[in-house]
Amino acid sequence: MSIERHGTTRRYSDVVVHDTTVYLVEVPQTLAADITLQTREVLAAIDTLLTKAGSDKSRLLMATIYLRSMDDYAGMNEVWDDWLPVGTAPSRACIEARLANPGYRIEIALTAAR
Amino acid sequence: MSIERHGTTRRYSDVVVHDTTVYLVEVPQTLAADITLQTREVLAAIDTLLTKAGSDKSRLLMATIYLRSMDDYAGMNEVWDDWLPVGTAPSRACIEARLANPGYRIEIALTAAR
Amino acid sequence: MSIERHGTTRRYSDVVVHDTTVYLVEVPQTLAADITLQTREVLAAIDTLLTKAGSDKSRLLMATIYLRSMDDYAGMNEVWDDWLPVGTAPSRACIEARLANPGYRIEIALTAAR
Repeated sequence: MSIERHGTTRRYSDVVVHDTTVYLVEVPQTLAADITLQTREVLAAIDTLLTKAGSDKSRLLMATIYLRSMDDYAGMNEVWDDWLPVGTAPSRACIEARLANPGYRIEIALTAAR
Repeated sequence: MSIERHGTTRRYSDVVVHDTTVYLVEVPQTLAADITLQTREVLAAIDTLLTKAGSDKSRLLMATIYLRSMDDYAGMNEVWDDWLPVGTAPSRACIEARLANPGYRIEIALTAAR
Repeated sequence: MSIERHGTTRRYSDVVVHDTTVYLVEVPQTLAADITLQTREVLAAIDTLLTKAGSDKSRLLMATIYLRSMDDYAGMNEVWDDWLPVGTAPSRACIEARLANPGYRIEIALTAAR
């Protein structure tokens, strides 16, 4: 059973594919930005990683969204709702948690189908 | 490779099936309730979703349980232990986290086999 | 489609295998220990569970690392980076969260390929 990895460092891979299932985690690029820009950055990076993995955003299975503050919930949702193709939403959990870098307002873990 | 979705809104699906794996996330119905009632509600809703997905609670693979307060840990476990068929417990993580609605004491994310 | 469980209690299993995918969650043994020892304990226990499941640490797909305090981030990473075989890192999310036992500094949830 094949495992395919992209963007592999000593610590993590950007995306991992096992058989027909894709696993990825993404964080923002711009640490000083508001939730709108950070969510857009994370979702744009996810689009790129899904393409590398032979998938796309219409094939999401499960999303876990970590927010530094639930005060950003509405702002994140606005970008999320616009990004998702209608009728293709994954299962989704959303919780508040302190993240590894204090400049991250959001971190998204995703499972998708190839 | 087929993807099947139930209860799909603009933002999330209630349950998603990919091949033989089921993904779902559930929250309580009654916002003012204690942990016993909220856990019962979540697990009853999970039973319904698993049935829709062609699975059941004896086929759970991984559970992630988010609690608004670890003070509810014992109360949640009492309902959880009663609900699970003996010998079929999934891998399980449990953490405390602020949830999207302040009335939610619990949110459960599950992976199951069809 | 087969489901295989090891270390099954009333509440959770130590590791669950479905087809070619392995699910597990691990916590430390020594509650009074620092992050270095607790991370080593968790990763050693994970090695044992992966072996039971017919997998190993070179076949990790996704890791979710929960830390009681982000102050332990660097200490955890030092042990994690040493443990992982070069070129095999999984997707990885890391968040701060209060855990079920106040003596746990770390809890790790993993998906791996058999």
